[in-house]
Amino acid sequence: MKRDLLAALIFTLGLAWGGQAAAQGSDPLPSWNDGKAKQSIIDFVERVTTSASPDFVPPAERIATFDNDGCLWAEQPMYFQLLFALDRVKAIAPQHPEWREKEPFASLLKGDVKAALAGGEHAMLEIVTATHAGMTTEEFEQVVKDWGDTARHPTTMRPYTEMVYQPMLEVLAYLRANGFKTFIVSGGGIEFMRPWVERVYGVPPEQVVGSSIKTKFDMRDGKPVLVRLPELNFIDDKDGKPIGINTHIGRRPVAAFGNSDGDLQMLQWTTAGQGPRFALYVHHTDAEREWAYDRNSSIGRLDKGLDEALAKGWTVVDMKKDWKLIYPPAKK
Amino acid sequence: MKRDLLAALIFTLGLAWGGQAAAQGSDPLPSWNDGKAKQSIIDFVERVTTSASPDFVPPAERIATFDNDGCLWAEQPMYFQLLFALDRVKAIAPQHPEWREKEPFASLLKGDVKAALAGGEHAMLEIVTATHAGMTTEEFEQVVKDWGDTARHPTTMRPYTEMVYQPMLEVLAYLRANGFKTFIVSGGGIEFMRPWVERVYGVPPEQVVGSSIKTKFDMRDGKPVLVRLPELNFIDDKDGKPIGINTHIGRRPVAAFGNSDGDLQMLQWTTAGQGPRFALYVHHTDAEREWAYDRNSSIGRLDKGLDEALAKGWTVVDMKKDWKLIYPPAKK
Repeated sequence: MKRDLLAALIFTLGLAWGGQAAAQGSDPLPSWNDGKAKQSIIDFVERVTTSASPDFVPPAERIATFDNDGCLWAEQPMYFQLLFALDRVKAIAPQHPEWREKEPFASLLKGDVKAALAGGEHAMLEIVTATHAGMTTEEFEQVVKDWGDTARHPTTMRPYTEMVYQPMLEVLAYLRANGFKTFIVSGGGIEFMRPWVERVYGVPPEQVVGSSIKTKFDMRDGKPVLVRLPELNFIDDKDGKPIGINTHIGRRPVAAFGNSDGDLQMLQWTTAGQGPRFALYVHHTDAEREWAYDRNSSIGRLDKGLDEALAKGWTVVDMKKDWKLIYPPAKK
Repeated sequence: MKRDLLAALIFTLGLAWGGQAAAQGSDPLPSWNDGKAKQSIIDFVERVTTSASPDFVPPAERIATFDNDGCLWAEQPMYFQLLFALDRVKAIAPQHPEWREKEPFASLLKGDVKAALAGGEHAMLEIVTATHAGMTTEEFEQVVKDWGDTARHPTTMRPYTEMVYQPMLEVLAYLRANGFKTFIVSGGGIEFMRPWVERVYGVPPEQVVGSSIKTKFDMRDGKPVLVRLPELNFIDDKDGKPIGINTHIGRRPVAAFGNSDGDLQMLQWTTAGQGPRFALYVHHTDAEREWAYDRNSSIGRLDKGLDEALAKGWTVVDMKKDWKLIYPPAKK
């Protein structure tokens, strides 16, 4: 009897396995047009997951890191976290009557973002401090969630969390189906991403690396809280990306995905490891369906990175040519 | 045909499931004596993993955090990382002839640890800087691995990585078998732990939170490296533990394990969350098989934490009474 059960188990698992293999035989990246970029992703995944291959990578070491802004979701006309901050300034302005006379808030409230940001880094810091600090981590999480549920992008009028790239969602899912752990490594705020990235990208909070402000442990009515302080902790951009990866992950990724010069060090760090490595740049070339920008953009500039990608043979995705669609279909 | 296969699959999976349940029916914590402490762990795990239970916790939220020194491995006669630093001072002393005249190194090299540490925090910082900084992350990893392979504890003469607590290894494995992600949250150096915790505890590097020094991204012969700097980055102790958990994990644990006042804030933060929570203190009560210390110890002091544990009904493990054995059997 026992042997029969065992045989049934092996038989059935064999079928399940065959079914999965068949599913993988179908196109894992349906929103990608056939071409070099798509093929390079599939070739890499097959190489590192084929146990007979000299390039086989054990599952524990299959770490893939993704930039967020401009790589997994859009970043125009400005970083979405900045648009969040501007929305927050408007929302809490009634509690700050002094802002009517005080820059950068006065200009912001008049709708003149350009004048507000003319104050440069100091103005930015004022805005970030006013909108991101001075509350507990739980309060901030709720603010981000509420914003995600209600805010709309100024030109597409879609929720920001629907302005994610369908082809990249497929890459995330394809990698995970092949035993990869997918991490976000973004210049954006770590606590600005965590409330929604699990739902939207399938990436759990513990696999998010980002910029942060300092927090302070405190007791309020006998209950411990973490209070967000108006003090920078870490900038997860450029040189900061390998540092953030080392701090949070402690292993070198085997694959990294970015779209700007801010990701260059992450791609360098990734590809400098021994054995098979994969680096990909999303190149924003589609002015009609998304935006077209690279070497001269102040947001998501891709200049040195593009040269290095071409020189080193990294994959460069031409959004216009390589992607069948940009965003997932709108939710009802 | 399809329906038959489906029925076979369900039937077989049902058997597999039943088999797993039966395996769990056997003792998951064989090195624990029966008693309140052991029962409290099992009760908690069964409560949060029973889908019909009002206390059910979805797998994604099953986060358990463990202190390392004195909770997963021993910490006497001093923290093992300090013993590592002392070993390193001796190993690299030939490259530093000036140390023969310079404290704290001069005393250390004479074997007088007490005199060396009389210089307090400044002396400690000198030792840490000399032994932990000024090399790349990869070089440091190799140093730690080599030390782990060769160094011996001064009284037991065992490799340090064998001075781990067998009953706690069982708790780690038991939690993981029940869908928990197990994290280390230690005051020890994050890069001092990562080279060996995966092999010894089954905890991957990306699930280690610890203290750290700063690193700097640099190019050496066209190859990117991270250089360890003589500058403190983060102290993952006391108030720092909830902060480190928030930074690295971004979710509140449902279970936390510690042994000292340095873990108190982690246990407070964990148990203050909504729903079922579990907190456990390992109490060092076994002077014969290990060490006995608590309220008056300079290493791993457990004083306020013990009071709070008793007041709040947290589990307090009496090592002498609750554990059948301390360390795993020596490897041949």
